[in-house]
Amino acid sequence: MKSTRSPARGLSRRTLLSTLAAIPTLIGPLRLTPALAQADQLPSWNAGRVKDSITQFVTRVTTQGPDFVPEDQRIATFDNDGTLWVEQPMYVQLAFVLSRVKTLAPQNPSWKTKQPFKAVLDGDMKTLAASGEKGLMQLVAVTHADMTADEFTTIVTDWLATARHPRFKRPYTELVYQPMLELLAYLRANGFKTFIVSGGGVEFMRPWTERIYGVPPQQVVGSSIKTRFQMRGDVPTLFRLPEVNFIDDKAGKPVGIYEYIGRRPIAAFGNSDGDLEMLQWTTMDGNRARFGLIVHHTDAEREYAYDRQSHFGRLDKALDAAAINKWTVADMKRDWKRIFPFEAS
Amino acid sequence: MKSTRSPARGLSRRTLLSTLAAIPTLIGPLRLTPALAQADQLPSWNAGRVKDSITQFVTRVTTQGPDFVPEDQRIATFDNDGTLWVEQPMYVQLAFVLSRVKTLAPQNPSWKTKQPFKAVLDGDMKTLAASGEKGLMQLVAVTHADMTADEFTTIVTDWLATARHPRFKRPYTELVYQPMLELLAYLRANGFKTFIVSGGGVEFMRPWTERIYGVPPQQVVGSSIKTRFQMRGDVPTLFRLPEVNFIDDKAGKPVGIYEYIGRRPIAAFGNSDGDLEMLQWTTMDGNRARFGLIVHHTDAEREYAYDRQSHFGRLDKALDAAAINKWTVADMKRDWKRIFPFEAS
Repeated sequence: MKSTRSPARGLSRRTLLSTLAAIPTLIGPLRLTPALAQADQLPSWNAGRVKDSITQFVTRVTTQGPDFVPEDQRIATFDNDGTLWVEQPMYVQLAFVLSRVKTLAPQNPSWKTKQPFKAVLDGDMKTLAASGEKGLMQLVAVTHADMTADEFTTIVTDWLATARHPRFKRPYTELVYQPMLELLAYLRANGFKTFIVSGGGVEFMRPWTERIYGVPPQQVVGSSIKTRFQMRGDVPTLFRLPEVNFIDDKAGKPVGIYEYIGRRPIAAFGNSDGDLEMLQWTTMDGNRARFGLIVHHTDAEREYAYDRQSHFGRLDKALDAAAINKWTVADMKRDWKRIFPFEAS
Repeated sequence: MKSTRSPARGLSRRTLLSTLAAIPTLIGPLRLTPALAQADQLPSWNAGRVKDSITQFVTRVTTQGPDFVPEDQRIATFDNDGTLWVEQPMYVQLAFVLSRVKTLAPQNPSWKTKQPFKAVLDGDMKTLAASGEKGLMQLVAVTHADMTADEFTTIVTDWLATARHPRFKRPYTELVYQPMLELLAYLRANGFKTFIVSGGGVEFMRPWTERIYGVPPQQVVGSSIKTRFQMRGDVPTLFRLPEVNFIDDKAGKPVGIYEYIGRRPIAAFGNSDGDLEMLQWTTMDGNRARFGLIVHHTDAEREYAYDRQSHFGRLDKALDAAAINKWTVADMKRDWKRIFPFEAS
């Protein structure tokens, strides 16, 4: 058959379509992946009501109709400790503080007899807890301040490279939740901007959030201490001061969102009472399509089980509020097929 | 010629290339625009050393080689007042404050005899200036605080829609610099993220920066007052307090960049001594390819001419520093073919 001899001959709608269909293959780097929408992008979430609530919300706000939300307004905020990575037996940043105090102790002999340092060196968590916010701030001062911004970044990066979780014996950056990594990627694939809004220190997170979560530094909101700019000779320097700047927790989270992001989220993800106000601010926005999700730690075997009585990541008022406000509660044991990336999928 | 009869016949490198070249035309929405790199993307900049310094820097950091910078690190920060829009005869936000005081005066009869309000109502700028920072803060309190975040956004939006510049008789949002709009777009087309880092109030800018500059709210850093979150019945509310939170000016600019962006810029653009430290922080970074630019207002006829003696936007120390640090100084009269978008191009 010499169909190509005459341009008109053999040119049917079908051949035209098949020619067009071949184009993406020809131009490799530009090819679209129409299969993306069909494939399960949340493979570590078990089928059920919780998984459905996520995909149904995303479908509603990305489909033309009454609930459609333009891309620039698709802001999703995530708590970090207990929502994206492990927060037991203590917040990772507290483990960092205790570890750093021990490392710095030989240069600070007076700490042997001075609280709250003595409590840290003795492993006396009861006395440490009794030192309260004032004691904690003293520890933050010697581990987070009196150095340049670059120096702190290096210290955090080096510590995370060597520190190991006491139970899982792995770097903390491996103890992130696989279902949440998939959720972050799924939202981004659907035009969302994903932000971290954490009570943890912003400069403790920024060195690694892009690599681990795909969240760049400018999309990380957190607590902070004050910083001073100064020229040291010809070297411009940011110097960290032992003074609280902002606490991005509880009622501070909506404030941090307003101040740093400047847009109201349409979806928020948390796991504790520290996230209550962020979820209220996000979801209680008239009759618009909004989404709130609480990660409920129910799996003592694979991770931890804790809620109303926990010292770290207490989930009490926010669990009651979830029922009232129809927030989705992800039951780790029931809803997560896989917890950590290193588990076999 | 029946060259297409046999697949082998007539298949030369040339016909293959011409076939591939046709593909972009076939697949409309995906088509690449190879002409983009060649076309003049800065048409409102006159040819010369200043324009060359911009394009040469962008070429260096986007071309594989010793000065190449990965896309995620291409952060560019722009001052707003006097760099992106007009700041004479006074900062636009100050015009807003004065206008709001006059609007609110009938509801506040005591202002007729009380400073600094009386000075505003009398148009007595000398007494107003003498009231200093304390006086200014009183004016900010009554015009920016004691209302919700949403209420303030509405007030700003409404004011900008009706206010007119005293000389140009146009909305302030039209008094933006066409060469800088082109520069913002040019940088973004080359993989940069563009941020505003302004001494002005962040909530005064965010309602309109995306529409006017293409800079979304989360990429606007500025001064701010404190905010409090509270539930009012079932309505979560952000309430603005008459208390300074952060002053994003002078040595505050590198601090704001660290706190809000978390990454050191590789290019910074300003026009006054308020931008000195931002340009130092950006450019004095070892021997790496960095870019600093100062807009010098030299055109009294088309805009304004001011520098070392100006009350608003004083350019004195930063002009000396520009010479020492080899920052580019854009001479408005010499380097800008066109100042405002509404001028004929």
